[in-house]
Amino acid sequence: MPASTVGFEAKMDHASLLKKVIEAIKDLLGDCTWDCTNTGMSLQSMDSSHVALVNVMMKSEGFARYKCERNLNMGISLASMAKVLKCAGQEDNVIIKTDGDSSTVTFVFGNDDGDRTAEFELKLMNIDVEHLGIPETDYDCIIKMPSGEFKRLCGDLSQFGDSVAISCTKGEVRFEAQGDIGTGHIRLSKKGSADKPDEEISIELEQPVSLTFALKYLNNFAKATPLSATVRLCMSNNHPLCVEYPMPEVGHIRYYLAPKIEEEAD
Amino acid sequence: MPASTVGFEAKMDHASLLKKVIEAIKDLLGDCTWDCTNTGMSLQSMDSSHVALVNVMMKSEGFARYKCERNLNMGISLASMAKVLKCAGQEDNVIIKTDGDSSTVTFVFGNDDGDRTAEFELKLMNIDVEHLGIPETDYDCIIKMPSGEFKRLCGDLSQFGDSVAISCTKGEVRFEAQGDIGTGHIRLSKKGSADKPDEEISIELEQPVSLTFALKYLNNFAKATPLSATVRLCMSNNHPLCVEYPMPEVGHIRYYLAPKIEEEAD
Amino acid sequence: MPASTVGFEAKMDHASLLKKVIEAIKDLLGDCTWDCTNTGMSLQSMDSSHVALVNVMMKSEGFARYKCERNLNMGISLASMAKVLKCAGQEDNVIIKTDGDSSTVTFVFGNDDGDRTAEFELKLMNIDVEHLGIPETDYDCIIKMPSGEFKRLCGDLSQFGDSVAISCTKGEVRFEAQGDIGTGHIRLSKKGSADKPDEEISIELEQPVSLTFALKYLNNFAKATPLSATVRLCMSNNHPLCVEYPMPEVGHIRYYLAPKIEEEAD
Repeated sequence: MPASTVGFEAKMDHASLLKKVIEAIKDLLGDCTWDCTNTGMSLQSMDSSHVALVNVMMKSEGFARYKCERNLNMGISLASMAKVLKCAGQEDNVIIKTDGDSSTVTFVFGNDDGDRTAEFELKLMNIDVEHLGIPETDYDCIIKMPSGEFKRLCGDLSQFGDSVAISCTKGEVRFEAQGDIGTGHIRLSKKGSADKPDEEISIELEQPVSLTFALKYLNNFAKATPLSATVRLCMSNNHPLCVEYPMPEVGHIRYYLAPKIEEEAD
Repeated sequence: MPASTVGFEAKMDHASLLKKVIEAIKDLLGDCTWDCTNTGMSLQSMDSSHVALVNVMMKSEGFARYKCERNLNMGISLASMAKVLKCAGQEDNVIIKTDGDSSTVTFVFGNDDGDRTAEFELKLMNIDVEHLGIPETDYDCIIKMPSGEFKRLCGDLSQFGDSVAISCTKGEVRFEAQGDIGTGHIRLSKKGSADKPDEEISIELEQPVSLTFALKYLNNFAKATPLSATVRLCMSNNHPLCVEYPMPEVGHIRYYLAPKIEEEAD
Repeated sequence: MPASTVGFEAKMDHASLLKKVIEAIKDLLGDCTWDCTNTGMSLQSMDSSHVALVNVMMKSEGFARYKCERNLNMGISLASMAKVLKCAGQEDNVIIKTDGDSSTVTFVFGNDDGDRTAEFELKLMNIDVEHLGIPETDYDCIIKMPSGEFKRLCGDLSQFGDSVAISCTKGEVRFEAQGDIGTGHIRLSKKGSADKPDEEISIELEQPVSLTFALKYLNNFAKATPLSATVRLCMSNNHPLCVEYPMPEVGHIRYYLAPKIEEEAD
């Protein structure tokens, strides 16, 4: 069976990075398919309720070693992958490998000591892949802010309502939620990056936007917070929001979510 | 509507203090009424089972800014107020404001940076106020001890029984609980305040007391521990216990609880 | 009643040690009997499902003070004993005492300050004692490893299956589990003790062994991890495994578990 020589093998110096990627998407997606090509490992999938879209890109340059002899799809349970990654030590590196025809993928954790290796084989699955194109859009408004701030305000406003109205003008962005007990408003002003670049709040504005989103999804997206100090919210009126967590030198996670109609901007 | 100019506005430098006050009372009280006058904000209410009485006093001098143009009652859900205060940052200050005729109260959190403001409006409620006088009493015995010690011993003894018998003589105070698995006794001796005033244990005794209380309530009172390094237990035979947590320069929280009859002191 | 002068009294400088002992066994055993003699306090009991055997030895030399005037059996609920030990302060010492004819045992916690003493009396129970001899065995293989590593690998492999196959050769020991989602293998190599003796992995091998055990029990044994930096696994083909946590200068906890038949080594 000469095909079995066709293989995929990739090594990451920090298994913890892969662990954070999986933690950021496993609650939204159930089983999913990783596309492995010689440019990298990527994933694109609707969440299980078919409302949000998740896109992960880990470029081949982001790996310590990367070999992909033939394009392949790895159908995998993210819950199982999360179990495997729980077994990685804090300092461990990870090798991911599979043959083109194999029904399993292997994760090998190790570190410089070499006294301990842990190897886990997961069964691969056949998953129907619906390939979803994401049209490139010129956004009306791009907000960059600390990812921790975004996580915090989504959590805070969730106490007041199910939806958040985001409205952005040149100098500030406002988030508002309302419900039975009252209303909450959070206002962030532009803020320079002088000494603390990770605390920068920047707003690139073509035209003012005002859109409403389900907080349940935004809270889920915020699980990517440990991956990145900053987050970018890209918005256009009547278009899906894109929430991007960049992974410097590696790639990104992007989440897409359509605005709520009843609150749609004029 | 000229009445709307009548207003209440108070600023506290540390929203975290107000948060601790609410955490200390919200499980005992449900909805309650804050009395705002030009001497301060206060609250007096029976717990929802009508067994314990809670009294909170925050004096106007304890605020960074305080303006109350007309006495008013703010009926509010403490659960909702706790949700709002969860949204305060560690370093945030808080402004509480309402118009005399308004149906809402507004909490504004901010800090020196000024790049972020968060504003929350809660609906006010009409609550039947039963005004309860607390007769001033000369107590037979006043014990001052570290609040953490009181919390710990109530928690420890709760493992052995539902009630604690407190008996105090000139030199020491004893706490005893008993139940199916056995008995527990904790004895604290007087202790000077020489180098560590917060660890002082002092006993002012007019006459020995011996009283029994339900631990369930004492454990609830101990939720005020983060507010104050020390607690005062004021007791007289056949009278309610007063557990006081002083908030230096601000005011106090006092809890009152009647002793259990079957174990009443002679 | 002159018999009441016959007594048992033992003082330990660190109540925290006794607490860790109880935490290590209370979930496996329910009520049990401590045997007190002039050589020490010990306990031997099957777990409540009658699968594993637990043996605890605390030698009289391990106590700060130890007096046992007559052999006695203390039947006690470990759950109650754990409740008592929760009441010990971090720095407290503990005195355990009972009369030969008493129906209670008393635990007294104190510390150098002496301002606080806490005393707890537990009711003793009559428990049918089945005395189980543990035959001395010459083991084919004794593995010494960091106790934290053993705890971690049992926990990790529990995600993959209910059983772990342990196989040991001269240079390394392998742990393997498999189940529905895939398989996990962890391999540890021998490792010197040069600078970090607690990280040593040593293997004494008379002949290779390969045995399978229920992870549920091993995870329970690993609750003794806080007691000891190292653990010893003593194995012979077709014999029960002995997992020993030494308590230096005090004694040990040993757990015994029969291998699973279906996977029995040849």
